[in-house]
Amino acid sequence: MSTDNTESKCGASTGESSTETETAESKCGASEARSASNASGEAASATKTETSSESKCGASSSSSSSSSKCGASSDDDEQEVGSTVEDFDGDPGRLVAVGLGPGEAEGMTTRAKTALAEVEQIVGYTTYVDLLPDDITDDAEDIYSTPMCGEVSRTEEAIDRALAGNDVAIIGSGDPNVYALAGLALEILESKGGTASMVDFEVVPGVPAAQSCAARVGAPLVNDTVSISLSDHLTDMPTIESRLHATAKEGFTIAIYNPWSRKRRENFEKCCEILLEHRDADTPVGVVHGAGRDDEQVEITTLGDLPELGETDLIDMTTTLLVGNEETYVWDDRMVTPRGYETKYDY
Amino acid sequence: MSTDNTESKCGASTGESSTETETAESKCGASEARSASNASGEAASATKTETSSESKCGASSSSSSSSSKCGASSDDDEQEVGSTVEDFDGDPGRLVAVGLGPGEAEGMTTRAKTALAEVEQIVGYTTYVDLLPDDITDDAEDIYSTPMCGEVSRTEEAIDRALAGNDVAIIGSGDPNVYALAGLALEILESKGGTASMVDFEVVPGVPAAQSCAARVGAPLVNDTVSISLSDHLTDMPTIESRLHATAKEGFTIAIYNPWSRKRRENFEKCCEILLEHRDADTPVGVVHGAGRDDEQVEITTLGDLPELGETDLIDMTTTLLVGNEETYVWDDRMVTPRGYETKYDY
Repeated sequence: MSTDNTESKCGASTGESSTETETAESKCGASEARSASNASGEAASATKTETSSESKCGASSSSSSSSSKCGASSDDDEQEVGSTVEDFDGDPGRLVAVGLGPGEAEGMTTRAKTALAEVEQIVGYTTYVDLLPDDITDDAEDIYSTPMCGEVSRTEEAIDRALAGNDVAIIGSGDPNVYALAGLALEILESKGGTASMVDFEVVPGVPAAQSCAARVGAPLVNDTVSISLSDHLTDMPTIESRLHATAKEGFTIAIYNPWSRKRRENFEKCCEILLEHRDADTPVGVVHGAGRDDEQVEITTLGDLPELGETDLIDMTTTLLVGNEETYVWDDRMVTPRGYETKYDY
Repeated sequence: MSTDNTESKCGASTGESSTETETAESKCGASEARSASNASGEAASATKTETSSESKCGASSSSSSSSSKCGASSDDDEQEVGSTVEDFDGDPGRLVAVGLGPGEAEGMTTRAKTALAEVEQIVGYTTYVDLLPDDITDDAEDIYSTPMCGEVSRTEEAIDRALAGNDVAIIGSGDPNVYALAGLALEILESKGGTASMVDFEVVPGVPAAQSCAARVGAPLVNDTVSISLSDHLTDMPTIESRLHATAKEGFTIAIYNPWSRKRRENFEKCCEILLEHRDADTPVGVVHGAGRDDEQVEITTLGDLPELGETDLIDMTTTLLVGNEETYVWDDRMVTPRGYETKYDY
């Protein structure tokens, strides 16, 4: 199935999930971390009301320092959360976690656009800040963005700005509940002695990558479905393998996030092995790479041919895999997973 | 957690999934089927260009007849698909399956609104047609809606109208890939001797119920997650039970669709038993009933207290359950499922 820009709706979500997991693996070494700090500084100096927002925000320094550590995957190299609620005077503002959906303006919900228009400040990964419509970025009092790095520091920055009295949105593509920052925001709020109510914490849902990518290949996920990330940064590989075995056995369609990176190609290879233990080699697999980006590619392949794609440009951290179940078939360049109506109706 | 209309964003999706599965169980007996036929007729007579669209559409009669049978769950009571591609002259129009998301206008993506504005005709379940913004329904040349009944006939109606030369959208809340009609549309197209390319079949994704409901209770689904429907209309109960066992064992957070109906209360009871075999009684469970509707209720309970809620108004076919994993906790009226950052970072 060739790329069709009129259907390019799902890549950035995958990108965000890669942000979540790639962070401590390959993209954020010390040099990258320095550029992260610089980028933060540039973003800061570029903002309209930087002085006031800086003066309101106790976390900008800890943001840089934690960025400078986010290349670490070892437990002894930790990000420190700096300020607590006691460091802020006055009434807190609001904090809303907004899912941008597929990562393009047309994929955003009206509610997400309204939420972003209502806040004073927007915090997010540079790639997704760049995806925002001009009318939203032009109206924002302040925008704080960091490169693919430091999701913890970025989330703390958003929280500190809210605790300092600003209405703040922290953005990500896809949905804030899918391998994203909604939970981290609540965990850090708690660690600071704050509460969700204190900042009227709200989550604005978006279209997840699995759904955006599924739409591009037809109807692969219309029955019971599981989403599994192959990144072992926050979940150990034995757990991931066990989940793959358990669900491949049970006829779930499987959406696989973060399938491949240079640092852990063996996770992808192991995943293919496990799936092939339980499903036929001709099981259809939808592969959506960098959708919504210049290098977008969409292909429908088979489980048997999947392993050899691991070393190609088609599969990396910006790719989402949609693995069919035993009933899934390919028809007219679409993946179709029957829901079972054919057992009830004659058509 | 009390109902807050400013957060009412997820019920209709659940409703749509209930539409998909409730059909052949309790809502569509013979008398309901008659009213379905009547309702179809009323919808028809209410449309602006009914004559022209009827004359273009070979399926309106089969629509009624199949509606009159959709109460059946036994295999010998089948819906017949009437027309085939040979019955239509001229060039086919376009067919797009549009996910409305949470089911309220603010939850729709810009892309969904654009798609609906571009088509000539809209086909859908009456409840979701009623949710469409006036500017979209006012602009539509024809709107065909049926009550909670006959998803097969409704889908065929949309396909026949497209094959007859109309640009048609078939709508549902949530996402067309989540217990919805994207797959059925392709299956029926194939059965008619048509192709997806013939009608430029496209799927426009929307925010699924799981994400919309998760947003209302915080961050319950930020790790590997599975969605399972308890309706045994299209999937047999042994399969559903096996899937519950397999995933409850593996630390997935679980979104449960269609948890309860009068006709199969034992499915819910069995589900609770299975979950309690593998998870502690104090495991948090988010319960979102009829969200976005007048009778919306949102509660966070525990797995131990869940069974007794089965007979209350809180849990029915319009409810989505969000079952936490071993790490999920409740804080400040929110469900939080840690992603594992706490093992990497100090906050």
